[in-house]
Amino acid sequence: MRTTVGIRWPWRALSVAAVACMVCIGVLATAGPALAADPSGAETLAENPNAPVDYVWIIIAAALVFIMQGGFAMLTAGLCRAKNVVNLMMKNLMDFAIGSLAFFAVGFALMFGADKGGLFGTTGWFLAGDNYDVWQYLLFLFQVMFAATAATIVAGAVAERLKVRAYFLYAIAICALIYPVYGHWVWGGGWLSSLPFGVGHVDFAGSGVVHTIGGFMGLAGAIILGPRIGKFDKNGHARAIPGHSMALAALGVFLLWFGWYGFNAGSTLSALELRASVIAVNTTLAASAGAVFSLIVIHAKTKRLDVGMALNGAIAGLVAITAPCAWVEAWAAVVIGLIAGVIVVFGVLFFDRIGVDDPVGAVSVHGLNGVWGLLAVGLFADGRYGNYTTEGPFVTGLFYGGGVEQLIAQAIGAVVAVAWALGLGLILFKALDVILGGIRVPPQEEIEGLDIGEHGSSAYPNFPVVEDVPYR
Amino acid sequence: MRTTVGIRWPWRALSVAAVACMVCIGVLATAGPALAADPSGAETLAENPNAPVDYVWIIIAAALVFIMQGGFAMLTAGLCRAKNVVNLMMKNLMDFAIGSLAFFAVGFALMFGADKGGLFGTTGWFLAGDNYDVWQYLLFLFQVMFAATAATIVAGAVAERLKVRAYFLYAIAICALIYPVYGHWVWGGGWLSSLPFGVGHVDFAGSGVVHTIGGFMGLAGAIILGPRIGKFDKNGHARAIPGHSMALAALGVFLLWFGWYGFNAGSTLSALELRASVIAVNTTLAASAGAVFSLIVIHAKTKRLDVGMALNGAIAGLVAITAPCAWVEAWAAVVIGLIAGVIVVFGVLFFDRIGVDDPVGAVSVHGLNGVWGLLAVGLFADGRYGNYTTEGPFVTGLFYGGGVEQLIAQAIGAVVAVAWALGLGLILFKALDVILGGIRVPPQEEIEGLDIGEHGSSAYPNFPVVEDVPYR
Amino acid sequence: MRTTVGIRWPWRALSVAAVACMVCIGVLATAGPALAADPSGAETLAENPNAPVDYVWIIIAAALVFIMQGGFAMLTAGLCRAKNVVNLMMKNLMDFAIGSLAFFAVGFALMFGADKGGLFGTTGWFLAGDNYDVWQYLLFLFQVMFAATAATIVAGAVAERLKVRAYFLYAIAICALIYPVYGHWVWGGGWLSSLPFGVGHVDFAGSGVVHTIGGFMGLAGAIILGPRIGKFDKNGHARAIPGHSMALAALGVFLLWFGWYGFNAGSTLSALELRASVIAVNTTLAASAGAVFSLIVIHAKTKRLDVGMALNGAIAGLVAITAPCAWVEAWAAVVIGLIAGVIVVFGVLFFDRIGVDDPVGAVSVHGLNGVWGLLAVGLFADGRYGNYTTEGPFVTGLFYGGGVEQLIAQAIGAVVAVAWALGLGLILFKALDVILGGIRVPPQEEIEGLDIGEHGSSAYPNFPVVEDVPYR
Repeated sequence: MRTTVGIRWPWRALSVAAVACMVCIGVLATAGPALAADPSGAETLAENPNAPVDYVWIIIAAALVFIMQGGFAMLTAGLCRAKNVVNLMMKNLMDFAIGSLAFFAVGFALMFGADKGGLFGTTGWFLAGDNYDVWQYLLFLFQVMFAATAATIVAGAVAERLKVRAYFLYAIAICALIYPVYGHWVWGGGWLSSLPFGVGHVDFAGSGVVHTIGGFMGLAGAIILGPRIGKFDKNGHARAIPGHSMALAALGVFLLWFGWYGFNAGSTLSALELRASVIAVNTTLAASAGAVFSLIVIHAKTKRLDVGMALNGAIAGLVAITAPCAWVEAWAAVVIGLIAGVIVVFGVLFFDRIGVDDPVGAVSVHGLNGVWGLLAVGLFADGRYGNYTTEGPFVTGLFYGGGVEQLIAQAIGAVVAVAWALGLGLILFKALDVILGGIRVPPQEEIEGLDIGEHGSSAYPNFPVVEDVPYR
Repeated sequence: MRTTVGIRWPWRALSVAAVACMVCIGVLATAGPALAADPSGAETLAENPNAPVDYVWIIIAAALVFIMQGGFAMLTAGLCRAKNVVNLMMKNLMDFAIGSLAFFAVGFALMFGADKGGLFGTTGWFLAGDNYDVWQYLLFLFQVMFAATAATIVAGAVAERLKVRAYFLYAIAICALIYPVYGHWVWGGGWLSSLPFGVGHVDFAGSGVVHTIGGFMGLAGAIILGPRIGKFDKNGHARAIPGHSMALAALGVFLLWFGWYGFNAGSTLSALELRASVIAVNTTLAASAGAVFSLIVIHAKTKRLDVGMALNGAIAGLVAITAPCAWVEAWAAVVIGLIAGVIVVFGVLFFDRIGVDDPVGAVSVHGLNGVWGLLAVGLFADGRYGNYTTEGPFVTGLFYGGGVEQLIAQAIGAVVAVAWALGLGLILFKALDVILGGIRVPPQEEIEGLDIGEHGSSAYPNFPVVEDVPYR
Repeated sequence: MRTTVGIRWPWRALSVAAVACMVCIGVLATAGPALAADPSGAETLAENPNAPVDYVWIIIAAALVFIMQGGFAMLTAGLCRAKNVVNLMMKNLMDFAIGSLAFFAVGFALMFGADKGGLFGTTGWFLAGDNYDVWQYLLFLFQVMFAATAATIVAGAVAERLKVRAYFLYAIAICALIYPVYGHWVWGGGWLSSLPFGVGHVDFAGSGVVHTIGGFMGLAGAIILGPRIGKFDKNGHARAIPGHSMALAALGVFLLWFGWYGFNAGSTLSALELRASVIAVNTTLAASAGAVFSLIVIHAKTKRLDVGMALNGAIAGLVAITAPCAWVEAWAAVVIGLIAGVIVVFGVLFFDRIGVDDPVGAVSVHGLNGVWGLLAVGLFADGRYGNYTTEGPFVTGLFYGGGVEQLIAQAIGAVVAVAWALGLGLILFKALDVILGGIRVPPQEEIEGLDIGEHGSSAYPNFPVVEDVPYR
């Protein structure tokens, strides 16, 4: 029996959050015209003649990162079953919608506001006051896309069993708090960025900040939820639960890869950084190598040309190159990608073996390869490029005479990311489980599909839907 | 019985139009090398060192607007039934193909040519003569995407029953005449732009010009056509006719949202307008708020987490922010979006109640929220930005001390847009109905699906297609 | 019975190639920091203040070309049967993955390295040494997308019967050798570009280099493979084998069209070439005209409003305008597109008549219209623009007083492209056929679908898949 409290609570919470936001907005509004820096852009343009190309670059890059939401939606839907597609589409849409409002209200200020002791930011709530400025808005635009990406990674790991209401509350938590605080440590001037090893912990486009955080939050969710009915047989052996559309899954990968050019190359945050071309090439080659080697490895192990694994391999390569993309040569990008392709296969098999059910492989793709990407900086960085600038100090890894200094900084950041995401993730999902009277849908609803149970509708009403996975 | 005349007429008309265009082109061609302004771009570059970044910006923005065609195609297909998908794909492709040629031949000149009495333009037919110029071509590129967007909005409102031939002729009419003339009044130096209230009627990226026009043309089509068989029960109560793929519908929304960054931010028509960052942020937040609040409202009314409504809510927010995007702060964008989310739910319920069948909710999403977007300028414009320039006069709404002047200008433009689109739309669809011997497919064909009846093929021949809507 | 050798060979070949690449990479790596030109971009920026906008332009254009991979995947999948979708998705993903690594290792050097006798390039292997330079990486980025486009065109022509292993080896051959060598002749300073007619053979964005090569390689594959079971009846008459999703096919066309703005306009390779606006307009209008006229012609011949043909007509227009896009006026783009729309219909009917089975019409769309695009330059080029520059010598065709000189240069290039692609294609696919003990899957596997036979999985396991084509 579903508890009434369990059902109504999150709606109330959501409504209360919405009303609270509206009140804040009302207060801001009644304060009259904002104290503003440069809302029209006239002063910025006068001071910086290169601003137009920077703005064009970042706006388009942000749009490219946005379409990754569509990519994740298609990939996740394609790798899951037809009976859960309405639910997945709602989660994918709403994590952006809810998450972006949360990041607007709270997250952006925590991540990029004036630093407080290296721990979090303290200014910029609701982009109000001095933040009514073309540059601040531009920064927010790019960063909100990253926050939403971290949020949406989790959808795959908790797919086909997490209540939609729990997911809404999770999306608020990650975008308002969990992601921005870790992000501040790396990108907002926080303590990780000033570690006394190498140039400090660096993460060019977010292998750690976005993907490790998202991936290990997903692991936490998958652990708390437990495996889907039918995933493991009586002896605990994992069974494949095939996704419902390889066409949509492939489309998702192409959209993700496409958007990744904005994700990585756009992270220069300035068109003056011509290193963007190296970044884009590295992004391409790592993805290719990831696809090729994941296919080779899975074929060696199973004799099957598994398209799902090849697709995941491409994404794994993209995740791994995200941190080092600006600091390595093309050949190193190939090596980083191929190792990512190997990691993703063994990761998926490992989580299957230990009984964690991650329907789309999100933990292996984003979590494990996020860590690998962070470490790869410490190995392959070639001392040719600084931290978002052509000027030094340059980032130099072990293989280029940098010693283990940078590798240590990278390892510390990786350990912190895993601990932060997994720790807070376990607490969050457990807390939601208690508050909502269960974050998992009832077994009957899971078997029939979340679409009918949670939404009262089906994703494909014109097609008879069948399933070839036996339940017992 | 179908009249032979009814079937052959439109083909003849289309062929005659095509031949007429070819003759015009022939005349132009035989006139030898065009009288040209700057076809190579060398002079423009010499005069304006900022031209490269402007051109890059506008070309990419135009490409982003183009992919909205794909977004509309997926959204419309997803929200309609499998048996009509071939028909919808053809309409979505051909409205761009036919419409862009019509806009090239006639529409662009009417909209942006030398002004005649504030009513229409008179130069630039076929981009010939002095229009063979890199800037004129650039302007055409961006604007043809907008014309085609207006055209394709209607496809959803008239879906699943309008003959494809009627749709082709409609596409010519809207792109050659209806859209460009109203567009001239607002963007081409016409009378609405010089109304003696506020700064005149303004519409930054086309809540009115594109979405109100498209939405109310769609209403006209839906009225003339009448509801689909099975939409209303004996007592006149609307029944849900679920779409055939929520995955494609969601993909459509992601593609639309993605393209909207080009639609709104690209409407600066210059990279020097750094206000584009504010525009892009407002676009993001309004869409998010629209999705969240349409979901809250529909859940409050029906207790269902309706993914179709959430998807439409995001688009509603995008439509509403399209006019005010350059003139408001982020918090106002949230408010504008949330009201859009409320409007779309009540709009859909309203049209259901009065017996108008709009299969995808296009009238509520684009028509009603287009009007709301125009009015929102008069309320929330904060006096920080001019009309596509950082220089004044600034646009100032009621809540920022601008009085009701701007609101009046906005209301006049909105009323004119509704009257023009609905009035000409009713005349057009009625005229087509008479000329073609009916614009609606026969009942048998409608029940079996337009794909077989109009195209002799099925969209999904490898899948058995069923339907769960009873006919009586 | 499948021979064990046939099955294991390609894997060994692939593994050997992979290991060989790794060894090369290892050698490069152990050589220490690369001899580099300007890996950080600092010098390039200092020398060329316009570099940022160029880099932004080319990176984004490259990303747009990348998403054409998604477009091809959706179009090909949509026009083929559900039982082969896993196989097609794998081919579409892996031709990019494998092909890009092959182009990185070998192809780029052959195409753009220091010229050897007008025949091929000789420097730039693995982007090593002096090629570790922001501009070289940028050029590679853009060009690798083109190489992969040529590769993926073939997938459609050989669909539904080619073994995936043969396809992998084909992808290496085209990206490492066949495409780059012809490409060198046109774009790398080779002999075709310096033909003593007109300004030499020119091909702005690759009607010949990419589409003719891809299209006629596809023809070679289709010839060697022979038609699919069931394609021709006992009397040799072609039967339609309908594709499994017109929604995905349409999506594919929208994605391709979208990406084509990067393909054509991005081929300026510099944002200073404002002619890009003319290119983008011509691209738009040719696609529209192609769609309209292919529909008119197919309707005239079959009385059916064939959506597949209209979709292919749009692509045909895009292919045809790809070579001339920078050198013609808008009206000429319309004419070029409409003729492309006619060619594609007659091409498809022709290949059906002579017994060549090209499941998606790739040979007609890309092969024939690639040739038409090359010739169109010699007819319609209006003498307003040079070869990627506003300075002369200008490209002038027959209709603008240029005589037949340019047309001859274009015809020579077209003949060479057809001979090169068809000749090497026949040799390649025949050689693969011998080496692999057959490049075609066994009949039983073809009937059941390649997904089960080659991959052991189905693309749509939640839907019962049927087929309406009889086999005998």
